[in-house]
Amino acid sequence: MIKQSILKKPILKKSGNQKEKTDYNNQSFVKYIELPEPLLGNNTADVERLKSVLKKDIGTDTLFFPTNLATDFPLKLRSWCHKVKVVLFRDSRGWRVVDILAPDKDKPVLGIAADLGTTRIVLRLINLENLAVCGELGFDNPQASIAPDVLARIHHARTSKGISELQKLVIDAFNRNINLLCTNFSNNSINLEAQTVPPKPIQTVPSQPIQTVALQPVQTVSPKPVDAISSQSVHLLTVAGNSAMTHLFLGIDPSFLIREPYIPAVNAPEPLGAAELGITINKRGMIYLFPNIGSYFGGDLISGILFAQLHKKDAPCIMVDVGTNAEVVVGYRDWLIACAGAAGPALEGGISDMGMTAKPGVIDRVKIDPVTGVVEIHTIEEKPAIGICGSGMIDLAAQLFLSGMLDIRGKFVPEQCGHRYFEKEGVGCFCLVYGSGQNIESSSGLSSDSDIVLTQVEMNSLTSSKAAMYSILQVIIEKTAGLQFNDLEKFYVAGTFGSFINPESAISIGMLPDIPLEKFEVLGNSSLEGAAKLLMEPDSFEEIELIRQGITYIELNVNQEFMNIFSGAKFYPHTDKSRFPSVRIHEQ
Amino acid sequence: MIKQSILKKPILKKSGNQKEKTDYNNQSFVKYIELPEPLLGNNTADVERLKSVLKKDIGTDTLFFPTNLATDFPLKLRSWCHKVKVVLFRDSRGWRVVDILAPDKDKPVLGIAADLGTTRIVLRLINLENLAVCGELGFDNPQASIAPDVLARIHHARTSKGISELQKLVIDAFNRNINLLCTNFSNNSINLEAQTVPPKPIQTVPSQPIQTVALQPVQTVSPKPVDAISSQSVHLLTVAGNSAMTHLFLGIDPSFLIREPYIPAVNAPEPLGAAELGITINKRGMIYLFPNIGSYFGGDLISGILFAQLHKKDAPCIMVDVGTNAEVVVGYRDWLIACAGAAGPALEGGISDMGMTAKPGVIDRVKIDPVTGVVEIHTIEEKPAIGICGSGMIDLAAQLFLSGMLDIRGKFVPEQCGHRYFEKEGVGCFCLVYGSGQNIESSSGLSSDSDIVLTQVEMNSLTSSKAAMYSILQVIIEKTAGLQFNDLEKFYVAGTFGSFINPESAISIGMLPDIPLEKFEVLGNSSLEGAAKLLMEPDSFEEIELIRQGITYIELNVNQEFMNIFSGAKFYPHTDKSRFPSVRIHEQ
Repeated sequence: MIKQSILKKPILKKSGNQKEKTDYNNQSFVKYIELPEPLLGNNTADVERLKSVLKKDIGTDTLFFPTNLATDFPLKLRSWCHKVKVVLFRDSRGWRVVDILAPDKDKPVLGIAADLGTTRIVLRLINLENLAVCGELGFDNPQASIAPDVLARIHHARTSKGISELQKLVIDAFNRNINLLCTNFSNNSINLEAQTVPPKPIQTVPSQPIQTVALQPVQTVSPKPVDAISSQSVHLLTVAGNSAMTHLFLGIDPSFLIREPYIPAVNAPEPLGAAELGITINKRGMIYLFPNIGSYFGGDLISGILFAQLHKKDAPCIMVDVGTNAEVVVGYRDWLIACAGAAGPALEGGISDMGMTAKPGVIDRVKIDPVTGVVEIHTIEEKPAIGICGSGMIDLAAQLFLSGMLDIRGKFVPEQCGHRYFEKEGVGCFCLVYGSGQNIESSSGLSSDSDIVLTQVEMNSLTSSKAAMYSILQVIIEKTAGLQFNDLEKFYVAGTFGSFINPESAISIGMLPDIPLEKFEVLGNSSLEGAAKLLMEPDSFEEIELIRQGITYIELNVNQEFMNIFSGAKFYPHTDKSRFPSVRIHEQ
Repeated sequence: MIKQSILKKPILKKSGNQKEKTDYNNQSFVKYIELPEPLLGNNTADVERLKSVLKKDIGTDTLFFPTNLATDFPLKLRSWCHKVKVVLFRDSRGWRVVDILAPDKDKPVLGIAADLGTTRIVLRLINLENLAVCGELGFDNPQASIAPDVLARIHHARTSKGISELQKLVIDAFNRNINLLCTNFSNNSINLEAQTVPPKPIQTVPSQPIQTVALQPVQTVSPKPVDAISSQSVHLLTVAGNSAMTHLFLGIDPSFLIREPYIPAVNAPEPLGAAELGITINKRGMIYLFPNIGSYFGGDLISGILFAQLHKKDAPCIMVDVGTNAEVVVGYRDWLIACAGAAGPALEGGISDMGMTAKPGVIDRVKIDPVTGVVEIHTIEEKPAIGICGSGMIDLAAQLFLSGMLDIRGKFVPEQCGHRYFEKEGVGCFCLVYGSGQNIESSSGLSSDSDIVLTQVEMNSLTSSKAAMYSILQVIIEKTAGLQFNDLEKFYVAGTFGSFINPESAISIGMLPDIPLEKFEVLGNSSLEGAAKLLMEPDSFEEIELIRQGITYIELNVNQEFMNIFSGAKFYPHTDKSRFPSVRIHEQ
């Protein structure tokens, strides 16, 4: 088995973008307001008196106050002695009042940030007043029961009632899990001692049964137990997802996302009422969907850019989200260029479609001794091996290539592979783990019931994927931005899948560019982090609009240059070896 | 009987503010838009492509597009070959898209303007594309079944379910009459030849059973019959009413309107969805309520100012709405000062609370020969006399005073009144019309079944009312604006009641100031006209906001100066006779 020190070291530095609580902008979506009492000399109406104070507090000229909030406002205002707690939100035209509440400091006003993934959805509950994280919860996107991937879901959406069926699945799942999140928080709030916690990102394990992690209590002002908290205390929901998931969440026809010329129905949907979508948070609650740039560059990426603050960097940086698609954005405070590719022939299947989904027993790390040829593996939670995931595949390909078992075209070299190589129906195969009783190198706990075998076909798929990834990067950095890879100050890796990739391995096979390892930073679930940032920092609205309007989007599916570059990138590490000076193949 | 020439001449000139159709601003709330087709090189989303063209067309930076309009937009847009008809509206933050329709020129997009009176409601149906008036309809405010006046309704609103009960009554009545208006228009459109009619105000007879008047067909582009038109073709509804009626229409607690310091819940309610209020026009339709300035200066007045264009005059003008309250605004392009009085002791009962509501048989004109003492009357529709209305009362008081039958304190002079004077339970009475068989002067058709008698108590009430009216005018013109009455270029009389007043009589009793008669202009139902103007000229939105924010509002109920002036104004025509040089009492 590989030494723990190698396998457990943090591969990539944690991003330093997470602010401490004290850094947060004084602005918040919840305000305590004390109104001047009306006088004969100042007979301004109740609503306008409130608006006047709020406008000054926020620093805005315009403020939308929904008329239906006025119905019982006069009596409430007086019974609350002209003090109110106001929940605010934003849309494309500025601020709006979402709700007016009693000036009760003990009852929290909550918001939920959501990463709406094609496969996995993660919710984070946030106290909008003290910005404490109150809980987090991940669950599988239930639309997968109808269609596993984006393309299939869009095809299903074209059937009669297809859109409403898909929308209902995801909305119902949101409602169930929002309730669960609130119930868990409520139970914990009552049981736990009050304490303040600064918001921090919480790593979730993908594709596991619904579970809450790292539940943290809200700061309570008084020592008395907090009242039971329900989803009615949730007033805001921010959702970051790719363009297709965003369309389906809103019940919007996604058909034209995947037909040339790849046109979304809407780029920047206005926030809408929870009731309009059937989301059972507070009936006056508002829901915000992050905007997209194009069919293949969605709100999850915009959210990620917001979190990474790419648009404020002093020197060019790149952010790559390796998910179902490869989505890339490069730039800094002066410009941002984005591209994404999915439906094109080179990216058929997607980059993350290598190996199986990460779960206990899945091989995530591989090491091959170039001298002895001994293969060492590591599995998630060190359970008996059941298969290999994407990051494990990249590790394996790198180790095979560096030890001479894979040639520069990505083909197995039978004489180097030795007893692990065999052919089945004419296709070359590599046995990574032998089944019980015959597993030569396996240690206890890493045995497998049956052989785990990689075929040349799977290896070719990996080769295409890694070539596509590198080609995307080359097109955007060299051909579009006119930079060299070494000009990049930082290489941010976003998305859950990306978090597990060993950049050294990815460089070895020519998937990622050969730049110093310290430039790589993993962002974790940057989509969720951005959605949470918006709830905690209202100024993010302007930033999102700046990002959205400032990005130049390149459609890779129709880029001929991309196809030319792609051919060279299918070699290990590349036809142009000068691009990978650090990659040294072991000489036999 | 009085000569026809005297009674039928138009007392007041019609206002010249009614524009011809060709004068209307090119802007409209309905736009035909042809979108550029999406291309690989321009992959802007459908919604943003539409917004971009619309923004340019309107000349705005911001445009709200409700997310739920996007759901089926992509397919519709393509089936309509990238041509659409867009219904727009405004709110405090600018323009918004209300609906997107097929680019069908034959199906009209309609709007309804409403004058929401305490007693009477009038609706006008307008084609939002060619600005033709398609019909008009008046009906009694059904809230009168619960409580006749504003004060009583507000008291009822304080009872459990009182607000929703009052709201439901008026909303249901709107729905019934909107349907009727559309059905009538539909029937007429199919039967009548197509023709274009410029919009013009239509005088409605107050307080008659529901009836449509002066139905005019919409201009049709093709010769084929217009399809049946339902309330689903109505997309916009503008409503001008006083502050209390506006609150109740919106279901907003009006309690504090009548309690010191007289605070409305809201001054400028944002437009809201028809569905929110249960108004059964198009489900995406929007409803706009004119803003108020204070509890006693409502949207009906703002609408009137908009119609009279008082805020654009070159010299100071005054507009007086003599309705349930006396509402006055004076000013021109440089400033506007408004005041209103109702709940104060001087105005108890209101100025229009003199005599009965105008209807057939009601005496609206009176003439007394100062030499012979012969009384001549005119009744509405020349039906047998059944009572006397406010304008008749003013005429009567003027004639009594000018012929010496009323002294300067407004008391009957028995020796001048002759056989018409008698006392009943110690109260002086004047018999205006004798019942059948004893009516000395009556002509055929003007007989009455029983005596029509005016008591000193009623005359005192008139005296208080006329004194209040003059005092309000004096406070606002002389004490507040620092002008003399003769500085006024125009004296606009708004409101249905005001339309019937003979200004010469009103001057004679000291109710209106003694200025040249040609300065008086009647505006008709200026509240309805302003509401209609908004539907036809979107720029009116800015004007309304300018008016609202530009008005200085004086609360008369608490003005001590008013109470001092009021005492002098209770004399006929005034303690200061120099104020009424034209009033000459007949010397016996």
